[in-house]
Amino acid sequence: MTTGTLFGVGVGPGDPDLLTLKAHRLITSAGVIAYPAPEGGESFARAIVSDVIPAGTPEVRISVPMAVARFPAREVYDKAAGDIAAHLESGRDVVVLCEGDPFFYGSFMYLYERLADRYPTEIVPGVSSLMTCAARYGRPLAARNDVLRIIPAPLPEDRLAEEIAASDAAAIIKVGRHYEKVRRVIDRLGLVTSCGYVERASLPTEIVKPLYTVNGHDVPYFSMILLYKGAEEWARAPQLSA
Amino acid sequence: MTTGTLFGVGVGPGDPDLLTLKAHRLITSAGVIAYPAPEGGESFARAIVSDVIPAGTPEVRISVPMAVARFPAREVYDKAAGDIAAHLESGRDVVVLCEGDPFFYGSFMYLYERLADRYPTEIVPGVSSLMTCAARYGRPLAARNDVLRIIPAPLPEDRLAEEIAASDAAAIIKVGRHYEKVRRVIDRLGLVTSCGYVERASLPTEIVKPLYTVNGHDVPYFSMILLYKGAEEWARAPQLSA
Repeated sequence: MTTGTLFGVGVGPGDPDLLTLKAHRLITSAGVIAYPAPEGGESFARAIVSDVIPAGTPEVRISVPMAVARFPAREVYDKAAGDIAAHLESGRDVVVLCEGDPFFYGSFMYLYERLADRYPTEIVPGVSSLMTCAARYGRPLAARNDVLRIIPAPLPEDRLAEEIAASDAAAIIKVGRHYEKVRRVIDRLGLVTSCGYVERASLPTEIVKPLYTVNGHDVPYFSMILLYKGAEEWARAPQLSA
Repeated sequence: MTTGTLFGVGVGPGDPDLLTLKAHRLITSAGVIAYPAPEGGESFARAIVSDVIPAGTPEVRISVPMAVARFPAREVYDKAAGDIAAHLESGRDVVVLCEGDPFFYGSFMYLYERLADRYPTEIVPGVSSLMTCAARYGRPLAARNDVLRIIPAPLPEDRLAEEIAASDAAAIIKVGRHYEKVRRVIDRLGLVTSCGYVERASLPTEIVKPLYTVNGHDVPYFSMILLYKGAEEWARAPQLSA
């Protein structure tokens, strides 16, 4: 018997309308749907496509303990890979739902490294929060020969400062509880007026504003700071310039 | 009379199946479709969605002279903005088709800077070649706290060397006729076995291979080199490891 195929499917940043035609088709015809979820909480990836999943589709929930939600928990992914492998062995295709894009800092890689050398695997790229935040902020990420740096906020403060100072353009991701540290670095570099802030891009609860207006309380994990140092006309986000 | 809305719509990397549901709906209901095209040649953005555009939809072709195809030609975009503005003034929504994503190094910004402060404007993010190349190469772009750099190949050789040497992970874009220069830099840094090469990602003419197997002839503009220095298990692209 032939095995099923493992699909790592990007479901986009949150608005179900930003699903690709391909993702939509794969989800509606999936043998099995799998997705990560915080222990005891709702899966964001599943919530994005909850109206698309046909009733009765078998689901594999990958419960990631809160304490390690953003770091690989070897046993969690070993078990999830085992569960998924059992479906694949039975000939069922498994669609793993991935927030945004599967290969842009996502947790899908922990399943991928455990399964892709044993089963047919296809990665379906999705609309990333990177591009969505720029769209919502109203300013291009980068242009012409700018080097764009994607900088994770959990980095140590001195490394952050070095990366931000040397950037033509940057997106600082996973801000959340690292907000105060990041803001301190940006203020010290005198760059706050070149920065925009976007949280929960494309969702009804989205917030978009200039960084200097952000209060540090309750900045969620799904937030991003966009920096552009260029002097182009379009470097001023039209809806934000007074 | 109210004016129409300007939509900058990402149409994804090439496979029409990677269009978003939103882009599909906007294109099928557009008052006017606009797109860039090389003078005398076919528009790639339009080709991606040619089966989606309803017959009879008015079109604005933005002919970009070959010599300046990758650089802003002020007069070309002034004229295109004027043509589009006339439609918007008449109350027609205008959908501008953008290869990949509108705000990731695209030419849409030249229309955006001319029109967005005068007309209601919405940017619809698309699946980027960045994520698509990683998906097709079979290796995550970056993980955990890696800094990912997007590096345009037209940069001078010494700057390229500096950026690549300091990267945890990198995507070198717009390779094309800069291939020999980029390859020289990567070889000198001893990084060739950490690099993958992807051209025309998601199209039937796609090529995916390890960089060390690439012959420099005929590398197209739509090509990318992906670099990952990490030692993670998944840093080895499964389909490329012998």
